[in-house]
Amino acid sequence: MTTPALRSDLGWSDATNIVVRGYDLPSQLLGHVDFGGMAFLELTGRLPTAAESVVFNACIVTLVEHGMTPSAMAARLTYLGAPEALQAAVAAGLCGLGTVFVGTIEGAAKYLQESLAGAGDAPDIDALAAAIVADHRARRAAIAGLGHPVHKPDDPRTIRLFEIAAEHGFRGRYVALIEAVRTHAERLSGKVLPINATGAIGALASELGIPWKITRGLGVMARAVGLVGHILEEMQTPIANTLWRMTDEAVTAARTER
Amino acid sequence: MTTPALRSDLGWSDATNIVVRGYDLPSQLLGHVDFGGMAFLELTGRLPTAAESVVFNACIVTLVEHGMTPSAMAARLTYLGAPEALQAAVAAGLCGLGTVFVGTIEGAAKYLQESLAGAGDAPDIDALAAAIVADHRARRAAIAGLGHPVHKPDDPRTIRLFEIAAEHGFRGRYVALIEAVRTHAERLSGKVLPINATGAIGALASELGIPWKITRGLGVMARAVGLVGHILEEMQTPIANTLWRMTDEAVTAARTER
Amino acid sequence: MTTPALRSDLGWSDATNIVVRGYDLPSQLLGHVDFGGMAFLELTGRLPTAAESVVFNACIVTLVEHGMTPSAMAARLTYLGAPEALQAAVAAGLCGLGTVFVGTIEGAAKYLQESLAGAGDAPDIDALAAAIVADHRARRAAIAGLGHPVHKPDDPRTIRLFEIAAEHGFRGRYVALIEAVRTHAERLSGKVLPINATGAIGALASELGIPWKITRGLGVMARAVGLVGHILEEMQTPIANTLWRMTDEAVTAARTER
Amino acid sequence: MTTPALRSDLGWSDATNIVVRGYDLPSQLLGHVDFGGMAFLELTGRLPTAAESVVFNACIVTLVEHGMTPSAMAARLTYLGAPEALQAAVAAGLCGLGTVFVGTIEGAAKYLQESLAGAGDAPDIDALAAAIVADHRARRAAIAGLGHPVHKPDDPRTIRLFEIAAEHGFRGRYVALIEAVRTHAERLSGKVLPINATGAIGALASELGIPWKITRGLGVMARAVGLVGHILEEMQTPIANTLWRMTDEAVTAARTER
Repeated sequence: MTTPALRSDLGWSDATNIVVRGYDLPSQLLGHVDFGGMAFLELTGRLPTAAESVVFNACIVTLVEHGMTPSAMAARLTYLGAPEALQAAVAAGLCGLGTVFVGTIEGAAKYLQESLAGAGDAPDIDALAAAIVADHRARRAAIAGLGHPVHKPDDPRTIRLFEIAAEHGFRGRYVALIEAVRTHAERLSGKVLPINATGAIGALASELGIPWKITRGLGVMARAVGLVGHILEEMQTPIANTLWRMTDEAVTAARTER
Repeated sequence: MTTPALRSDLGWSDATNIVVRGYDLPSQLLGHVDFGGMAFLELTGRLPTAAESVVFNACIVTLVEHGMTPSAMAARLTYLGAPEALQAAVAAGLCGLGTVFVGTIEGAAKYLQESLAGAGDAPDIDALAAAIVADHRARRAAIAGLGHPVHKPDDPRTIRLFEIAAEHGFRGRYVALIEAVRTHAERLSGKVLPINATGAIGALASELGIPWKITRGLGVMARAVGLVGHILEEMQTPIANTLWRMTDEAVTAARTER
Repeated sequence: MTTPALRSDLGWSDATNIVVRGYDLPSQLLGHVDFGGMAFLELTGRLPTAAESVVFNACIVTLVEHGMTPSAMAARLTYLGAPEALQAAVAAGLCGLGTVFVGTIEGAAKYLQESLAGAGDAPDIDALAAAIVADHRARRAAIAGLGHPVHKPDDPRTIRLFEIAAEHGFRGRYVALIEAVRTHAERLSGKVLPINATGAIGALASELGIPWKITRGLGVMARAVGLVGHILEEMQTPIANTLWRMTDEAVTAARTER
Repeated sequence: MTTPALRSDLGWSDATNIVVRGYDLPSQLLGHVDFGGMAFLELTGRLPTAAESVVFNACIVTLVEHGMTPSAMAARLTYLGAPEALQAAVAAGLCGLGTVFVGTIEGAAKYLQESLAGAGDAPDIDALAAAIVADHRARRAAIAGLGHPVHKPDDPRTIRLFEIAAEHGFRGRYVALIEAVRTHAERLSGKVLPINATGAIGALASELGIPWKITRGLGVMARAVGLVGHILEEMQTPIANTLWRMTDEAVTAARTER
């Protein structure tokens, strides 16, 4: 058997070196880079500038904790049965970060990046937005990143994220495009369609040069942190057992009433 | 049915508020706190001081990327079969962060915290260390956080982490205790037993007031970030399919040689 | 709070009853139904006839064990790190049963069921097949359930499964349709495109009345059994650690040769 | 690099053969073995006799469906967020099958097998049982497989399983031992401690020669089937969204009442 080529450049070590992404971990990263910077490095292959770091950290901090989501409930219910395997409880919670919730970051980043990819140096933002909205309407598809059941007419996280982006020079063409998409979508639908947090993050991830295919990973990273927090609260003031009993009672009631 | 008490204080929102851990997310956290700070908040319930932030970030950055680990391999092999579900690939990778690898943070933090918990204000570090080592020897158990196959006589990450801790006032009694444990263990076993990175992090997490029961979560958080990086590399320069073929060939060779 | 309707009819129990899917578990299922029958009950809501049982069991038995797949490798690598959580190792292995491998059952069942759904009592099988193939060619999409790298011109599992189906009265219109799809696809592509095992199972699941949306579940059920077998072999003659070392060597070689 | 030994004997195929556990899959297994038989083969390395098949199938059928468990809830909540990845929803549900619920099969099988392993051909069952109970009391540990909140004084599944075992010649020394353990435990504790279903299955798995270390796998296999059933019901009459809203309301109520 000849050795097949298995190329990986993320990290390696030998007796004298511990290298991560081309940096000597002890001397060049520890004490110099924070967790957000490492996450940026994982997503882009380079360390962030100071301005990029602020914008990126704001995006990922937004995603850490959303309260008692289905994902957090799944993690807590898993911990109830397997308290010896905290990592599996977090894994169970992550499994639900699919197309419906966190995956909308990816959906928004995809149409923004694909739309601007072929649009040249002076894109006609309004025309691109019109085309995006028309395409979604033709497919009767919801536009990822728009709409919120509660935060209307504007999502306060989006306002703040775009403000931070503007302060640091990252309120660019992707932000302009999603804002134009919103305008067209509201006009054609007659609905109030705020740019929600995942839409804003899809746009800012694009500004930061993160490929849309990995943007769901932003939510996965951030929520892993939040789920560890939920497990810790579950250790201290548990609710999973009550949640189970409450559900079982409601299911029993629904059955016996028929 | 009376409403059961389901208490959770991590986050909530209504039409006008989005609150995480008691802070208004848009105005008090976004732009003010980085990802490491959010992770610290999740683990301790409060934001870190500047000094705590440096030490904590150094610990978690250490854990992000360890190269081609079994966990990274599992994530990549999962992505090969289900590229539409990046989150499940990360989840698969996390499932292996159990007692053998990352769980040693928890093991080290446990004996350090339990030992010092009842030791009063002026603990006899040397006596506590002797007791810890004696207890492990009586149970013929390995001492979590000691030993490394390659990094001898010292793990360069540990040297650097303890240096950063010293600079910021966190080289305290937990660090002293694990160093004394090492001394006793080496004397009794006759082996070279460096404090490895998970041992160092178990000690520093203890210095930072993180309960040992949740310290495995440090590794889970960090590795979730690293696994997203592996999935991105797998998208760009895939190896999972080659890994599979190589394994299949080796299994076939082992079978047909018998 | 009014009690929300949480309806579930799968199973319930009280002090005197343990009911699963409407049957008294101890007296009506235990000793009367086998594991395959229970799986059929879960997928269709009723117990199988004797003929259905043979065909269904043949399908699911086909899916249990495929040797050293990426899914089996992921499960073993996970077990290496977390031997205390066998269930998480199986879960990690299942996470990769997505669109690429086992998901092709679902792909085949979908076009077969959708095609015949609106085709009336005397469908023109040949015309339906031509339309399916044309649709795939227009979208430049592979046809799920056709083709195999090794088993040509025919997959021996498919031959046997269709033989068993014929003996028990289940070689019906879905089997005829996938055979016609194969004929058209081979003619238009000039390639040899055997109906592979997942294609055959997609057709037979359709004959058995299993909705295409849940057919991936057949593979998930079956492979869960196979993965437990892999974990048992891993306990007895472990390979995960060697697999890791071998991979690490190959990655190192690929890096240092550059 | 020399080829490392990666031995696996579960399955392999080449152009002309598809072999699983030493059997030719198409000709020797398909149509001849049912799903329960395949599961037995995975756990023991051989096909069951007719009597073994009945007992084994009864055990595994018992474990498939337990109604709205935390595991089923986690799977449904995961499916809500990632409906495109059914396999990940099942995986999330499996992650919770740890020490608390299904793991008790393993706990019971462990003390039964370890106790009888060194007891020779004519074991003193009563003395062994007394020793098991004394050991648990000394460690203040619950005895796995005993006790049930609802099914008292006896679990009807256990009665039926032991009846089936007796009819087929498998009510042997392991069953006798767990019954003696119950007697001693009830006498010393003054409590009613029925042998629950997991205890009965731990004993019968031991009678069937299944190593205790893999017995948790029985529950994992069976529950994977049941979880697919829950996902199918969730597709048809969904409850996860209501469950989430109900939980969120209760958490909100608990917070605002303080």
